[in-house]
Amino acid sequence: MFIRNCWYVAAWDHELLSDTLLARTIIGEPLLFYRMGDGTPVAMADRCCHRHAPLSQGRKEGDCVRCLYHGLKFEPGGRCVEVPGQDSVPATLHQRTYPVVQRGRWVWVWMGDAALADEALISDDFSLQHPDWHYRPGYMHTAADYRLICDNLLDFSHLSFVHEKTLGGSTAIAQAKPVVEHLPRGLRVSRDVRNTVPAPYHARLGNFTGQVNRHMTYDCVVPGILLLQAEVKPADTPDGDPQGALRMRSCQALTPETAGSTHYFFMQSHNFRPDDATVTEALYQSVAQAFAEDKRVIEAQQRLIDLGGVDTVPMKFIAADAALVKFRRLIEQLMAEEQAPSLTPKQQPQETV
Amino acid sequence: MFIRNCWYVAAWDHELLSDTLLARTIIGEPLLFYRMGDGTPVAMADRCCHRHAPLSQGRKEGDCVRCLYHGLKFEPGGRCVEVPGQDSVPATLHQRTYPVVQRGRWVWVWMGDAALADEALISDDFSLQHPDWHYRPGYMHTAADYRLICDNLLDFSHLSFVHEKTLGGSTAIAQAKPVVEHLPRGLRVSRDVRNTVPAPYHARLGNFTGQVNRHMTYDCVVPGILLLQAEVKPADTPDGDPQGALRMRSCQALTPETAGSTHYFFMQSHNFRPDDATVTEALYQSVAQAFAEDKRVIEAQQRLIDLGGVDTVPMKFIAADAALVKFRRLIEQLMAEEQAPSLTPKQQPQETV
Amino acid sequence: MFIRNCWYVAAWDHELLSDTLLARTIIGEPLLFYRMGDGTPVAMADRCCHRHAPLSQGRKEGDCVRCLYHGLKFEPGGRCVEVPGQDSVPATLHQRTYPVVQRGRWVWVWMGDAALADEALISDDFSLQHPDWHYRPGYMHTAADYRLICDNLLDFSHLSFVHEKTLGGSTAIAQAKPVVEHLPRGLRVSRDVRNTVPAPYHARLGNFTGQVNRHMTYDCVVPGILLLQAEVKPADTPDGDPQGALRMRSCQALTPETAGSTHYFFMQSHNFRPDDATVTEALYQSVAQAFAEDKRVIEAQQRLIDLGGVDTVPMKFIAADAALVKFRRLIEQLMAEEQAPSLTPKQQPQETV
Repeated sequence: MFIRNCWYVAAWDHELLSDTLLARTIIGEPLLFYRMGDGTPVAMADRCCHRHAPLSQGRKEGDCVRCLYHGLKFEPGGRCVEVPGQDSVPATLHQRTYPVVQRGRWVWVWMGDAALADEALISDDFSLQHPDWHYRPGYMHTAADYRLICDNLLDFSHLSFVHEKTLGGSTAIAQAKPVVEHLPRGLRVSRDVRNTVPAPYHARLGNFTGQVNRHMTYDCVVPGILLLQAEVKPADTPDGDPQGALRMRSCQALTPETAGSTHYFFMQSHNFRPDDATVTEALYQSVAQAFAEDKRVIEAQQRLIDLGGVDTVPMKFIAADAALVKFRRLIEQLMAEEQAPSLTPKQQPQETV
Repeated sequence: MFIRNCWYVAAWDHELLSDTLLARTIIGEPLLFYRMGDGTPVAMADRCCHRHAPLSQGRKEGDCVRCLYHGLKFEPGGRCVEVPGQDSVPATLHQRTYPVVQRGRWVWVWMGDAALADEALISDDFSLQHPDWHYRPGYMHTAADYRLICDNLLDFSHLSFVHEKTLGGSTAIAQAKPVVEHLPRGLRVSRDVRNTVPAPYHARLGNFTGQVNRHMTYDCVVPGILLLQAEVKPADTPDGDPQGALRMRSCQALTPETAGSTHYFFMQSHNFRPDDATVTEALYQSVAQAFAEDKRVIEAQQRLIDLGGVDTVPMKFIAADAALVKFRRLIEQLMAEEQAPSLTPKQQPQETV
Repeated sequence: MFIRNCWYVAAWDHELLSDTLLARTIIGEPLLFYRMGDGTPVAMADRCCHRHAPLSQGRKEGDCVRCLYHGLKFEPGGRCVEVPGQDSVPATLHQRTYPVVQRGRWVWVWMGDAALADEALISDDFSLQHPDWHYRPGYMHTAADYRLICDNLLDFSHLSFVHEKTLGGSTAIAQAKPVVEHLPRGLRVSRDVRNTVPAPYHARLGNFTGQVNRHMTYDCVVPGILLLQAEVKPADTPDGDPQGALRMRSCQALTPETAGSTHYFFMQSHNFRPDDATVTEALYQSVAQAFAEDKRVIEAQQRLIDLGGVDTVPMKFIAADAALVKFRRLIEQLMAEEQAPSLTPKQQPQETV
């Protein structure tokens, strides 16, 4: 069960070149992505409607794709336009297609009712293509329910423990109370950490010699898009004074592959020392290393959940779970609305945590 | 669910030497194959009736086999003849045996009612042991339902696409209408392709300099036996004139291992340039390469079928599916008859496609 | 389904050093083992009660363990004593703990009702820490139901066949009738083998030049603990005369990891040539090689059982199964009593074999 009426990140632009037939499973549905001659992306069911062979093992022919099992050819709208050895093409032969758009460097696909596909719902991925912000693009596959990764992102107290030696550096992050605000389809979380030691990767990049203040604020919106701004600067710099501050921006997108696996698209960008490629690379490596730390914990969590057994007890909640509980409730609510779209709000099923 | 009352190919002769205990699972049943001293093959359940250890990890002793877990010894009829440490052998200790015969170079096993095991039902595997026909024997394991491979064999239009660079070479094969005839337990399919370019492997073997005519005719009989004759010759040679023709014969047998995996026994033989071992080898390599192409498509098809999901729609049919639909219907009909053997034909359940 | 009210061997002492967080799944439950500062072992649920991350990926802090996901800290009794960022700790936050003791070189855990955990029920593992007995400790993981390994240990007739070239050497072992006696929670099995050839490993260790007598006696108690004494000496030595005898003692413990996998802890010790380390090593290697022979048979047995299918028939019994049938019945009986603890004996469900 997934939210269908939303935009999922399907690919980085460099994964979908002009001659690529990209197979990617999203919310359990095997999809084919490719580009028309003018660059417009196409998303259609990867299972050929004839014998369920993968079109992604086929061939691009102009703006069309040909299945290389028995040669059926489909135009970008999904309609079959040729059946070798057959004069006419029955109207039943067509592939489901999905609304798909490229915005900046991400290709987004809408998995639900095409009539509701509103590009205004695509998150503002500000720094993905801004000339002042520099990054290396990242992708990681995680063998876990995407909601476990959302949980992770919605409680940065884990930086103090999972990322002690990388993005964290101090238990002060876990001690600082976050502010959680509602957004139309998500949450905004802010956390101010004062007079703390810099994170190991900040220390490397910023040459801090003393205590720092850290500020992080991010939006996390459905289905699982995180847009973060972070600032770290010497603790003795007055608020509002940008002197000596490092600023970073991060765009992260979680796209469920199946109920138990997730595509994780990420980047973390900097606008300081913009011409220093070693900063870009160091930032990428720091984040990639930290995300591998998350992956280790989250995949272990998934394995323990999958193991089940008589000793399994329900998860117990702590104060730091406030944001993740709200976000999971939002996901549940949106799925319930999709299941029963005709219910008026007051008739909606009671939410449960 | 499989047809039981039929002969399945279990092994090549060279897989079952005089000292071999061969473990091979057929239609989900783990079997042991071995030979008596006079060469007669034996097939019995591989699970020892005592503690379900595999007899195939045991030892041949004369015409008997001894389980090397606790030492029970069975004669070729399946009866236990010795229990170490016990004076008498209870009659309950016996292994199920299966009718098994060697015909030419294939060992065939009957998985159903032994009383119905009629050797006349074994397909005429003509060129498997004919002195004029030369080949290297082939075996391939495929992680797919055997019916997906039957589908593949029953529609040679795929030669134009899957085997474009090997056995195909032209879309003319897909364009040519096949003739499909009914056989008692199968179908005969013929396809005449005129004035076409030779397939890449024909070009290598036949030194064709211009267009060719290709003719293929094959029987496909239950459970999944294909016996093919193919001819390719210059397009300007009159029909009936053998001048310059390459003739090939192929025997292929699909034996389900489980519901999702298949043993594929194959050969393709030639009678031209009979003393040229490089022809035999080149033919084997060409076919093995092409079957690897099939395997790639069919296993991908199986994975997409297994993935299932809400986006799955039933397969849509095209004209080229006529033969495979008939063959699947025949399989269904034979299985239904085995399930309800006492029904008279008019009482049989209605066939469904 | 497993017996819960019993002691399972969880680890060798050298697997649980002072700084170790050992993750080990027992009867399907993921457990964490560690030691307090004074060496006392602790066993608690490995799934953190907060978000089910593994505590075994956490950190020891004094006698406590801290989850390195969000930093919750638990004392050895399982109570949470710190939630970072939260002033008070709700009483609901606690980990289940399990009674655990070290006896000699094995760490034992009680998986059932803690009130019933009686250390007197721990088997007397005599030679595990006796200064006169020498061995190398062994551990093997087996992908099979632990009861299949119990079956194996309860019928030494398999030595003649599985271990023909290692621990066996003669069919005389299978021919000798064992004596089976009841113990409070297990069985005692004795087997006297007279005038037989020495086993290959005995021949190497004992320099026997002629026939030998072998005597083996062992207790096998729930859940799956085997304590064996074996003697081999020249057949012409009078009974009771220790001249020229090799004596060995073996402690073996089967601990189910899951329904289909088992931890196997073992040793085989000698008191002859006590200062000769090559004897210790040779004995270890002989037993490890033999247990690999068992593993090959038992894992194959498990695969055939798992394959199931219409051809599966129930296991048939022979005389040599007497002990294993009794032991399986005992396991069933103990599990039934745990399921219905309030039933008086006469109301207990009828045993079934």
